[in-house]
Amino acid sequence: MAAQVHEFTLEMTCEGCSGAAQRVLGKLGDKVSKVDIDLPTKKVVVTSVLSAEELTETLKKTGKEVTYIGSKKA
Amino acid sequence: MAAQVHEFTLEMTCEGCSGAAQRVLGKLGDKVSKVDIDLPTKKVVVTSVLSAEELTETLKKTGKEVTYIGSKKA
Repeated sequence: MAAQVHEFTLEMTCEGCSGAAQRVLGKLGDKVSKVDIDLPTKKVVVTSVLSAEELTETLKKTGKEVTYIGSKKA
Repeated sequence: MAAQVHEFTLEMTCEGCSGAAQRVLGKLGDKVSKVDIDLPTKKVVVTSVLSAEELTETLKKTGKEVTYIGSKKA
């Protein structure tokens, strides 16, 4: 499966929150090629070969509310 | 196994962080009977029949650094 860019909203309110999101995605190793997090807009943009469902499940592990926005070709 | 009180330090910096910790522990259902979180001291005190290892793994899912402090009888 080719890498796609998936966009999520994650309920982040501080640097600790965004760092946590970064780390849980980092645990996926080379299946995730890029992570962009924007704290003010609560956006998490992930470039990955994993599906939106798999990435959603990963982000949910943080205990924060996740909303999937959509995807586009990498 | 009888419930024990386990104490952890979790790197929490805002209400979002402590809420996330509360929610991941909440997913364990009735295996966790009580959770006390003190944000300023970063303390998470959990009364549970689960082992310190199981609770540590659960807290690690948040993507935050966890340190186990110790346990006592409930």
